[in-house]
Amino acid sequence: MTDSKKPNRREMKSKGLVIVNTGNGKGKSTAAFGVMTRAWGRGMNVGVIQFLKNENARYGEVRAAEKMGIDWIATGDGWTWTSKDMDETTARAVHAWHIAQEKISSGAYDILVLDEFTYPLHFGWLETETVLAWLAENKPPQMHLIITGRYAPDALIDFADLVTEMREIKHPYKNGIKAQAGIEF
Amino acid sequence: MTDSKKPNRREMKSKGLVIVNTGNGKGKSTAAFGVMTRAWGRGMNVGVIQFLKNENARYGEVRAAEKMGIDWIATGDGWTWTSKDMDETTARAVHAWHIAQEKISSGAYDILVLDEFTYPLHFGWLETETVLAWLAENKPPQMHLIITGRYAPDALIDFADLVTEMREIKHPYKNGIKAQAGIEF
Repeated sequence: MTDSKKPNRREMKSKGLVIVNTGNGKGKSTAAFGVMTRAWGRGMNVGVIQFLKNENARYGEVRAAEKMGIDWIATGDGWTWTSKDMDETTARAVHAWHIAQEKISSGAYDILVLDEFTYPLHFGWLETETVLAWLAENKPPQMHLIITGRYAPDALIDFADLVTEMREIKHPYKNGIKAQAGIEF
Repeated sequence: MTDSKKPNRREMKSKGLVIVNTGNGKGKSTAAFGVMTRAWGRGMNVGVIQFLKNENARYGEVRAAEKMGIDWIATGDGWTWTSKDMDETTARAVHAWHIAQEKISSGAYDILVLDEFTYPLHFGWLETETVLAWLAENKPPQMHLIITGRYAPDALIDFADLVTEMREIKHPYKNGIKAQAGIEF
């Protein structure tokens, strides 16, 4: 969680950022979709890879991306950390990471969102140090990468340029109000 | 900052939420724009009123809203808390609040974003108790309201259903990297 100074960055004016939205509160993925919208407004190329969400889900954000013509790839089988079949879960994470590597290497994107990518790292389905070493070597310098999810590993936080913790102060579930279309999905 | 239980809400299944994104970190407005995108993906009616941003600014999110056909009203004169002309600032906040009242009363929106609305409350350009009393009386029950900005007053947090604090863990400004189009505006 250190905010270490890297002198070689001091002279830089713009660079592709590694952005992490973590914490137990709302808005981690949603803020990433906000950046997606903002960048799309400027005609930039944006892509989204979802690591856990079901590939057949028809969430509002999926429908929006379709209308906007944004590349959206969902690779998960749902909320997989309750999965009984952990080999399948790991295999899906590895598969999704291969897709991400291909998209990152392609240089086709100004911004790529790796939604809920912290979970494969946190649960060890992917090795954090290997992933970060690959990114350090292969991410195009001007490309922005947005990684979302709880439990961001410390090594990822060290690696990132911009880290925000979304912290729950008050949540309506506690007052018996269910998740609602448009607001939460 | 209390998470007070309101028994009369317990039986409710869905209701229009008052959502507050506050704190010193990134993603407060951006997450609101993410909800805007998600809801737009579902064909819901969304509107945005910006309390501080310059009405002539051409931010990515403004361009996006235009392309999406989303109502977007910017009423501010920029970052007005450095304003030398505080009467003008107050007058603009009051004017923007009148527009918001009209939009809220109209019942035309499923979701309305009051972007940076915490500042007029915090700086006293609008009276928080009066604003909340008006909302309690006049907000359509199923309409969602999203309020963003630092320094959310305690009374607003008590009033809200869902409150998230965006907390800065690490920020690239500190390493000499400037704000970048698409990512931050």
